[in-house]
Amino acid sequence: MNFCVKCGANTVYKVPPDDNRFRRVCRLCGHIHYENPKIVCGCLVRSDDLVLLCKRGIEPRKDRWTFPAGFLEIHETTLDGAKRETAEEAHAEVEIEMLYTQFDLAYISQIYQFYLADLVGSFAPGDETLDVQLFSKNSVPWEQLAFPVIRRSLECYFSDRDSGRYKFRHFEIPERASWTTI
Amino acid sequence: MNFCVKCGANTVYKVPPDDNRFRRVCRLCGHIHYENPKIVCGCLVRSDDLVLLCKRGIEPRKDRWTFPAGFLEIHETTLDGAKRETAEEAHAEVEIEMLYTQFDLAYISQIYQFYLADLVGSFAPGDETLDVQLFSKNSVPWEQLAFPVIRRSLECYFSDRDSGRYKFRHFEIPERASWTTI
Repeated sequence: MNFCVKCGANTVYKVPPDDNRFRRVCRLCGHIHYENPKIVCGCLVRSDDLVLLCKRGIEPRKDRWTFPAGFLEIHETTLDGAKRETAEEAHAEVEIEMLYTQFDLAYISQIYQFYLADLVGSFAPGDETLDVQLFSKNSVPWEQLAFPVIRRSLECYFSDRDSGRYKFRHFEIPERASWTTI
Repeated sequence: MNFCVKCGANTVYKVPPDDNRFRRVCRLCGHIHYENPKIVCGCLVRSDDLVLLCKRGIEPRKDRWTFPAGFLEIHETTLDGAKRETAEEAHAEVEIEMLYTQFDLAYISQIYQFYLADLVGSFAPGDETLDVQLFSKNSVPWEQLAFPVIRRSLECYFSDRDSGRYKFRHFEIPERASWTTI
């Protein structure tokens, strides 16, 4: 953010008037460049007693398994974003059951929201996906999962499935090291 | 976004390679300027059988009543953001009970998250607040509330309070007109 998006002049890192945080401010036109956390949305897709996972075809964590998920786009609800990502990455249509897990990953300024969803029909790898498969609890590649949010969501799911009661869970992860404590 | 934040050159509105959406892309260095929805977080603060509302001192909706809330900052969890906004706008400390309502306002690319929280100690107007008061269900200025998300959250709260069972609610609002249907 060295240059102003509105006028192209140089920016300076300072606290704007009536603010209490450092922001990138244009030296010429004064435009303030706010930076905000991003939302990642996706689906924990189930089919009978199996769950759907995608093998990542791109970095980071290429070749590891994940939920179909990605950045929420402008003018999109998180539910629509989750369905879109599932269609793009797993060529799968789903029926949404509920918003299931949220992870606030403050250390990378990302908020994850995963929906519990039921598979409708077929599936196949999208452009950024090497493989899509359905796994039972025992066949999930636990040591080859791409991200801690995936492991934690799956643990919640299999636990809730055993108890028969599914509930929304919210996890605050201030720092990378916080993962060891939940 | 007419100029590149990285090099200051002109941008062009086009679909980048391996993408399917129009983005602002730098003509010179190729940097892609993604735009993503923003998160607004805040607290529905209760004190015994009263709820806390702030009278807005700034536009939009100056002089109308709202929850203490604002944009989530970089490297912040939604819970910490909600507590910070409550401290800034109502000089109030709170104990968080639960994530209570979420509104996906796709038409303005904002995701609202309100926490149910209990007031601890005193309160007073912050810099952007004209007044802070506690209201009973009957004394809430229903016709002077700032935003539909506030009204809907309060309706949920008083309904849940009557039933004695508080649960997380998620509302998808694709268009401004959708407000009339929930």
